[in-house]
Amino acid sequence: MIPLPRRLLAEFLGTALLVTVVVGSGIMAQTLSPGDTGLQLLQNSTATVLGLAVLILILGPISGAHFNPVVSLADWWHGGLPARDLAPYIAAQTSGAISGAMLANLMFARPPITWSTTDRTSPHLWLGELVATAGLILVIFCLARAGRTAAAPAAVAAYIGAAYWFTSSTSFANPAVTIGRAFSDTFAGIAPSSVPAFVAAQLVGGTIGMLLIHALFGTPEPVTPHPTVKR
Amino acid sequence: MIPLPRRLLAEFLGTALLVTVVVGSGIMAQTLSPGDTGLQLLQNSTATVLGLAVLILILGPISGAHFNPVVSLADWWHGGLPARDLAPYIAAQTSGAISGAMLANLMFARPPITWSTTDRTSPHLWLGELVATAGLILVIFCLARAGRTAAAPAAVAAYIGAAYWFTSSTSFANPAVTIGRAFSDTFAGIAPSSVPAFVAAQLVGGTIGMLLIHALFGTPEPVTPHPTVKR
Amino acid sequence: MIPLPRRLLAEFLGTALLVTVVVGSGIMAQTLSPGDTGLQLLQNSTATVLGLAVLILILGPISGAHFNPVVSLADWWHGGLPARDLAPYIAAQTSGAISGAMLANLMFARPPITWSTTDRTSPHLWLGELVATAGLILVIFCLARAGRTAAAPAAVAAYIGAAYWFTSSTSFANPAVTIGRAFSDTFAGIAPSSVPAFVAAQLVGGTIGMLLIHALFGTPEPVTPHPTVKR
Amino acid sequence: MIPLPRRLLAEFLGTALLVTVVVGSGIMAQTLSPGDTGLQLLQNSTATVLGLAVLILILGPISGAHFNPVVSLADWWHGGLPARDLAPYIAAQTSGAISGAMLANLMFARPPITWSTTDRTSPHLWLGELVATAGLILVIFCLARAGRTAAAPAAVAAYIGAAYWFTSSTSFANPAVTIGRAFSDTFAGIAPSSVPAFVAAQLVGGTIGMLLIHALFGTPEPVTPHPTVKR
Repeated sequence: MIPLPRRLLAEFLGTALLVTVVVGSGIMAQTLSPGDTGLQLLQNSTATVLGLAVLILILGPISGAHFNPVVSLADWWHGGLPARDLAPYIAAQTSGAISGAMLANLMFARPPITWSTTDRTSPHLWLGELVATAGLILVIFCLARAGRTAAAPAAVAAYIGAAYWFTSSTSFANPAVTIGRAFSDTFAGIAPSSVPAFVAAQLVGGTIGMLLIHALFGTPEPVTPHPTVKR
Repeated sequence: MIPLPRRLLAEFLGTALLVTVVVGSGIMAQTLSPGDTGLQLLQNSTATVLGLAVLILILGPISGAHFNPVVSLADWWHGGLPARDLAPYIAAQTSGAISGAMLANLMFARPPITWSTTDRTSPHLWLGELVATAGLILVIFCLARAGRTAAAPAAVAAYIGAAYWFTSSTSFANPAVTIGRAFSDTFAGIAPSSVPAFVAAQLVGGTIGMLLIHALFGTPEPVTPHPTVKR
Repeated sequence: MIPLPRRLLAEFLGTALLVTVVVGSGIMAQTLSPGDTGLQLLQNSTATVLGLAVLILILGPISGAHFNPVVSLADWWHGGLPARDLAPYIAAQTSGAISGAMLANLMFARPPITWSTTDRTSPHLWLGELVATAGLILVIFCLARAGRTAAAPAAVAAYIGAAYWFTSSTSFANPAVTIGRAFSDTFAGIAPSSVPAFVAAQLVGGTIGMLLIHALFGTPEPVTPHPTVKR
Repeated sequence: MIPLPRRLLAEFLGTALLVTVVVGSGIMAQTLSPGDTGLQLLQNSTATVLGLAVLILILGPISGAHFNPVVSLADWWHGGLPARDLAPYIAAQTSGAISGAMLANLMFARPPITWSTTDRTSPHLWLGELVATAGLILVIFCLARAGRTAAAPAAVAAYIGAAYWFTSSTSFANPAVTIGRAFSDTFAGIAPSSVPAFVAAQLVGGTIGMLLIHALFGTPEPVTPHPTVKR
């Protein structure tokens, strides 16, 4: 296994750039197509699909390219990520997400931190997050179980691109990214007060996703390659 | 062959999520870009391409990822799916499709069932469904015959994405999904009274598709891997 | 080599469906987004990319999936297609293209033949066709020379999708498809009087493409697998 | 290694066609969707993704498909491109970029050279270029280090497609292309006076990208295959 500091750098960098893509393309969309929210979401989702696929592809060989505490938790549950790496992974992801939002703000000549005022509080949005996160876990671990992880970069990105549209919440599906998106008062933002319920719905969704994997496959294989001895 | 209950779960889940993608993204498109039906269809077709490709990719190894009674029938005809599995497959697909429409309705804060009032009754639309379904069967079984099933997730999704645009009916091409789409009075819906003729056109189209495969290749190979003994 | 009748069926069917995709999605775009020509072209080009990739993928193993007289000529020149198959290939492509336009017209409840009235006569459009066709030949035979023909379906489709936008003529790049598109007075149509100059520009462009291949690689390999004896 | 003249032809041709795609699709977008800058950028970025992927795919086996002085510099630094080829590569790329802009102008019936009047001078745009170029180098050399160069055509194109949206500068990320885009007073243009600062930001970004590669992987492998003796 690659030394932890390099894996943490990959998780930090990957989550940061993911949020930069999400927030930055949201600002660009909002600026250039001010009159049509649907067109803005199409621009935002297209950029996210392309950017996310690349980030998973290039950083996957280093850290597993989780970029998401729910994925790290699921990987640990399935015996992939060692328990002792869980907290550092989540810390790297969360600090990365915040840094990425700040970078996006700076690139578009805004103050580095502007708290989002977009309220996203409603039971149907929480159902959206639950479905989005369950689906994400389903995608990742179906591929892992079928030995198709080479398809993960394209598949995870395509899934998120679809979920931007078919879930009512536009599919945050990621606690670290949700926190990061609170730091930009722009298209992709979420008010800090809306964050806890989103994260809770994501954790419930992740659990449902893992139960579905068990129903479909039985005990799953881990995502991250790891030594079978010395665990 | 994987035990039937797991395959049925995969067919149920896959068809449900496919309809959730189609109906959910249709609602989102209608809500965010109310003024431009063409832009709505672009958003709807983009989400469907991405979602369908992922669903076939992740569930294909379990059930063959038919998600469509016409595909199951064609697979049975070509010697793939055992006759005794045909009715359970179609039941799982149809109940999945209905569940998926209900999930989409709930995620967007609507009553779980709202009968569609979108009338789709016209000979040129039936010709559209016939062409759409013939093309779908052509795509799936050309790939099976050429030993290129690894390309099926991307190819089937790409085909449907094109067929949303080049057929007058926006390419339902799937009896189970057609029934499911009757349960949501939104962008992607179809009035229950329009369903039977659509399904009939799809069955005729599927038959034409199979005849074309015979003309191009002779007797085709089955989609689902299956034991050659004990059939 | 697969018997000629099956190959001709594949060329007929593939060129027909290609024109159905191009013309049909053009009609749909024109109908649903009447106010924005750029959005129409985006819808039209997106559908074409998806449809063309699938058609090359599924029919390539049978006929080489030329769907284009310039490609057949280039393949013959490079020693691929036997000379005696050239005329039948071009006949199948041209009749397929016309049939595909008629099918699109019928699916959208129009008379099967409506001569296009869209005049496309201008030196800068001919330069567009020349560049478009040179690029197409470059793409196909670079892949053939590098042994990357497995990438041809995606690459040729992606190229055409780009060329819809970067050439002034929206990249017909295909004499058979150009003739077919004269049979529909809709978005993708071309007036019959504009066809000869387009075809001439395409032939010049194809020749330039082949010269570029020679400059880059020397004597190229054929696209279609063929027996080295008995030629 | 392929003889230098053929590699230079590939670099010239690839960079020329890349700029033709960028500038040409920008003119088309501006012409067809005059009212919505965001839609224009979506059309421009979509065409660029498709075109760039194809160009890298078809010309990569000949020259490495750098099309970008920063990439050639990074490849030389990492021990790939021989020092003596650096100046010829950059000359071929720059003259190609200018030729490509002229070809796009001519295809759209404009004078071959029209100096751009689009001023792009602002610190936040330079930060955008820095981030865009650092990311580009990160993508290319992460793939090289992980032995995934087969994914480079799709990955680099997808990255640029995302970066058009998530960077404030729409991601030129290429000194040769930046110079070429000064030769067309259209959507994708840049005023000559804005070029030097863009190029400087790109060089700084490229350096940061290379430092990140070192932090993630240690000493990297070269992109271009080359003899280990006689260097």
